[in-house]
Formats: sequence, structure tokens, C-alpha cells
Amino acid sequence: MTVAAECEVVVVGAGPVGIFSVFACGQLGMRCQVIDALSQIGGQCTALYPEKPIYDIPGFPSIEAADLIVRLEQQAAPFAPRYHLNQQAIGLRRNGARMLVETSAGVHLAAQAVILAAGVGAFGPNRPPLEGIESLEGRSVFYWITQRERFRGKTIAIAGGGDSAIDWALALNEIAAGVTLVHRRNRFRAAPASVAKLDELVAAGRIRIKTPFQLAELHQVNGGLEAITIADLDGRTERIPAQVLLPFFGLASDLTLLKGFGVELKANQVLVDALTMETAQPGVFAVGDVAGYAGKQKLILSGFVEATTAARSAFDLAFPGQAFQFQHSTHRGAPRLVV
Amino acid sequence: MTVAAECEVVVVGAGPVGIFSVFACGQLGMRCQVIDALSQIGGQCTALYPEKPIYDIPGFPSIEAADLIVRLEQQAAPFAPRYHLNQQAIGLRRNGARMLVETSAGVHLAAQAVILAAGVGAFGPNRPPLEGIESLEGRSVFYWITQRERFRGKTIAIAGGGDSAIDWALALNEIAAGVTLVHRRNRFRAAPASVAKLDELVAAGRIRIKTPFQLAELHQVNGGLEAITIADLDGRTERIPAQVLLPFFGLASDLTLLKGFGVELKANQVLVDALTMETAQPGVFAVGDVAGYAGKQKLILSGFVEATTAARSAFDLAFPGQAFQFQHSTHRGAPRLVV
Repeated sequence: MTVAAECEVVVVGAGPVGIFSVFACGQLGMRCQVIDALSQIGGQCTALYPEKPIYDIPGFPSIEAADLIVRLEQQAAPFAPRYHLNQQAIGLRRNGARMLVETSAGVHLAAQAVILAAGVGAFGPNRPPLEGIESLEGRSVFYWITQRERFRGKTIAIAGGGDSAIDWALALNEIAAGVTLVHRRNRFRAAPASVAKLDELVAAGRIRIKTPFQLAELHQVNGGLEAITIADLDGRTERIPAQVLLPFFGLASDLTLLKGFGVELKANQVLVDALTMETAQPGVFAVGDVAGYAGKQKLILSGFVEATTAARSAFDLAFPGQAFQFQHSTHRGAPRLVV
Repeated sequence: MTVAAECEVVVVGAGPVGIFSVFACGQLGMRCQVIDALSQIGGQCTALYPEKPIYDIPGFPSIEAADLIVRLEQQAAPFAPRYHLNQQAIGLRRNGARMLVETSAGVHLAAQAVILAAGVGAFGPNRPPLEGIESLEGRSVFYWITQRERFRGKTIAIAGGGDSAIDWALALNEIAAGVTLVHRRNRFRAAPASVAKLDELVAAGRIRIKTPFQLAELHQVNGGLEAITIADLDGRTERIPAQVLLPFFGLASDLTLLKGFGVELKANQVLVDALTMETAQPGVFAVGDVAGYAGKQKLILSGFVEATTAARSAFDLAFPGQAFQFQHSTHRGAPRLVV
């Protein structure tokens, strides 16, 4: 086994709170390595809703999620983090005060502390069981929308009955050649105002609704989607044209790998001591949505503070015996790596 | 007694955390009125160090303190706060569930909750006891520097022996016609690197040092400063030219007025329950530097989260019996006042 790199802190998860953990640790003289299952940093912000405005980050009356990530990345950059992407942290071994974190790519990282900033866990869409769907993903089939413009002029089938399905039916109707909404029940579970708007557009012939229907088959031409077959409960089928299929059946997330860290999971959160953000496992901290404690608010902002708390706690492990001296950032000066 | 205005929450202090409290309350449907002793909002950020870069606000690799305030003000603006400036909150009276906050200007504000975001308290400089000094303040005498350029080409006397005195001697030396540093001791209490730099500039004849000397007299011409007289411990005096005097004798801050709210002060902090930010006085919350609890980190960022916690607590008082429904800001949409 080769240890790829030494550092003070391994951060699991490169969402906004994971990235800010790099900054918070850096301010206290600790270098970080970050592991993420996705192919890019940013977590849900870049993967799920990059163009969505966030309104409650202090100092930003409005900021798109992807922009927030770009700015956090810049803020952490002076501390030269190494990002290990496309791999999951699968567990922890100890060697005295040193901890070894292993990833699914066989990388081993040594550190004095681990910060779990895993959000909802490694996440992915709930896939409808349709033959050939995987080969169409990213070209004709999308489980989330990162660029609305990509769908201009297309014939679109949307499947699902929740907010995502309705909201995107409304939003894409404005630019698509046609939108059909397929749902296996007759009723939609979405905000009443959205459903009312949907009813209006259906009455005006702008959106077609097919209920109660399920997806049954995909029809391809030249490697792209051409149509889908839908089926009702009695097995009656109908073929409808569709260049794009958007199945919105929710996300499945997976936190089970965190068990490899020996932490306690309860209702998809890792329990921590709010004073230190330490989990039941000494030296392993949790921050952001994955961290649970009394009074927890699931805000990105809360995660940022939790990151500074965890960094403060990790400091004592990274530099045992060294007194912690609090300094305001205005006094400390521009962030830089001190090794 | 006239009640000037009704609202859900009175915020005491218009520093960054006070302003963000307005936003956090607004997001939950509460309107705020804000009281501050200074003539402008922003607290220390605008009054003491508007041009200083802050590095640890998430999403801002660097932001000048005054810019942060401008952005926070924009963020809070949709909730139409009323700022009551140039006055101090002097106390609280109760009338059932309604609280009445009185200010030193005789204004009375009614609310269901109070958030104390008072920072270090109403603050001001330690003034040297020199005849006529008050009439020169803001023209020839400055206790803090908000615009360095204002001092270009001037003959400057700086009094004091700490970081502010040394740092400004070094910084103003670059643009001033001359800088004299007056200190009542022979040694300076400042960062060693700064003192070394000072020694260099003194050796090069760029900065003059007068120690051990104290300020004794101001000499005016045409309503401006012309020179100062300094005196040593034996009473020997010396007259030195100075168009500008910068006394850096620290800040005196005053939290005593908070006693009018019936809260418990300990080491210049109001003790709160970290879960709710409530003080010992029901319905009165404290956030930011003035709030004390186990594990407290004195960061602006911590204050922001404390503001969201206090707002959440105030919600139950403002809208008793109404169930709180958590919504992410991306889902709620652009901030707006809902009355």
C-alpha cells in the first residue's frame, strides 16, 4: 500500500462546506486533501442546481449556486488543496495518531484529522428500469438540468409528479417545441400555485398531460431518442414523440460508506458534539448537512460555521501541544500557505 | 409617550450581524427596526476600518469591510428595515407580550422580540485631555482613519505606542509631508516586524520619534491645527509642527446601557442559550460579539449564524401558534416583504 499524500486533514466531500473547510483549516496552518464521488467539485450546487439563485448567503443578495462554488474554490486556493475526484472515501484505519483514509480508487491519504462534509452522501438519480437508458444519459436522458438553454426547440417528455417535474414542465414550455408530462397517478404532489399554472397551460394546449401512465420503452434513432412508449395500468400503450426524456423520480443518496469511518448514523446524519463537531469517533469530525446535533439548521451558512469549529478542533490534533492563538483575518493578512 | 413604530423585532446595533439579523427575520416574515449609536450603519466595519480587507467571509476571498456592509444592506433592503441612528437603546418595558424599547432620542419602538447585536457596545475613542480638542475632531484630529488619502502631503503627529500607532506611522509615511510619533514610554507594544520596520525608517530619517513624551497642548491657526506641544516627565516641553494629530489610545466601549434590558453581562458579553440565542430575559436575544456561550468564536461568520438562530426563536414569539416551516431560500424565491 502506497500513501499518496500526507496532510493534516482529509475532507470527505467537495460541496460548499467541504471547500470552506479547506479554507478554515488553511487559516489555522493545516493542509487538506479532499475526496469526492463526483467528477467536479461543488456537490449538489454544481451537479443539481448550478443556475439556481441562493438568497441567504451573507453578503450576497443573490448568487447562483455554481458561482458560489467558484468563489469558495478561489478562497480555498491559497492553501493548495488536492482534490481527489471520481472516488468515494471508503474507510479509515489508524496508525497511532495518524489516520489513513482509503478511497474507492485505491488512493490512501494520511492525516491527523478527518472532516466529513458528505452532505446527503454520494448521490444519484432514481433510474427508471428502461432498456438502453444508460447509453442515452447525458445526451437524450437527463435526471437534472444544469443548462436550460440546451433544451430550446426540443420535443420533451417529462416523467414524474413532484415539484421538479411540474416546475420544469412550466419552465421548459417557454422554450421547447413541445412538452408532455407523464405521471403514473392522476394527481400531482406539487405546490398548489404550480399545479394551477400547469392546469392553465394544459387548457391552453401548451402542455400535454398523460396520466395515469408509466414509462415503458425508449425508441432510438441514430443514437438519440426519437420517441417513448408509455403504458397505463391496463397495459394499453401509446407512443409519443420525444427527443428528450427527463425522469424526475427523486434522488437516491448513499451514506452507507460513512460506516467505514466508524461513526454513528441516525436519520441520515452523523451525530456530533456541537461544541467541537467531533463524531463518536475521535479525530473524525462532521460538518454541513451530514452533521446532526440539537438545534441544527440545515443551511449552507450553518455548515460554514461548523467548518470553522471543526478546523479549530482539528488544530489541536494537527499541532499537539501548540497553543491556539485567535487572530482576526484582517489582522492575519492575506491567506497563504505556511508550511 | 408615543410609540413611533410597531414591528415584530427590534434589533439593537447596526453592525454586520445586526443588519443580517434584519435579513434573517425578514426571511421568516418579520419586520425589524434597528437602533444604533453611530450616525451610519455598519458598526466598527464602517467607523473603524472601512478599507480593511476581511478574508474569512465565505465566498469572498477578500472584501473590504465597508463593501461587506453595503452588500448586507442590499440583502436586508427587501424587508424594509427602519434604521434609528444617532441614538442608543436605553431600556425595555413590557406590556403583556409586547415589548417597548426606548432610545436616548425618546423614540419608543414596540415589538414582540428584541435582538441585541451590540458588538462591543456603543464605542468611542479614549480622548487625550487637551483643551480645544473637540472642536478639531474630524478636521485636524482623528481617532481612526477611514480614508488614508485624506492625509496626503500633511504634517502628521501620531500619539500612542501600540499597533495602530506604528502601523499608521508606517502607512502614512509613504504619503505624508512628515510623520512624528509621540509615545509616553520608550518602548512600543507592537508586532516585532512592525517595530523593526519603524526603526529602519527612523534611522533613514523618514519618521521622527519623540519618547518619552506626552501630549500637552494644541496650537490652532484659522480653526485648524498648526502645531502641538509635547512634554516629558520632567516637564520639559517641545513644540512640533502638526497639521494633523492622530491619538491612538484605544477605544472605550460601553455596554452598560444593555443593563436596561435586564440581561446578565459577564466579561462584556451577554450570556445566551446557544440553542436559541435567548438571554436570561425572555424574548430578548443576543447575537454577534456581544453574545457569550460555551465554544463561542468571535467571528463575523458566527454572528451571521447566531442571527438565523435568533430569528428562528423570535418567529415563535412573533407568530405564536403558527407552525414553523423550513424552506431553503432557493425554493422560497427572491426575498420580499410579506405583510
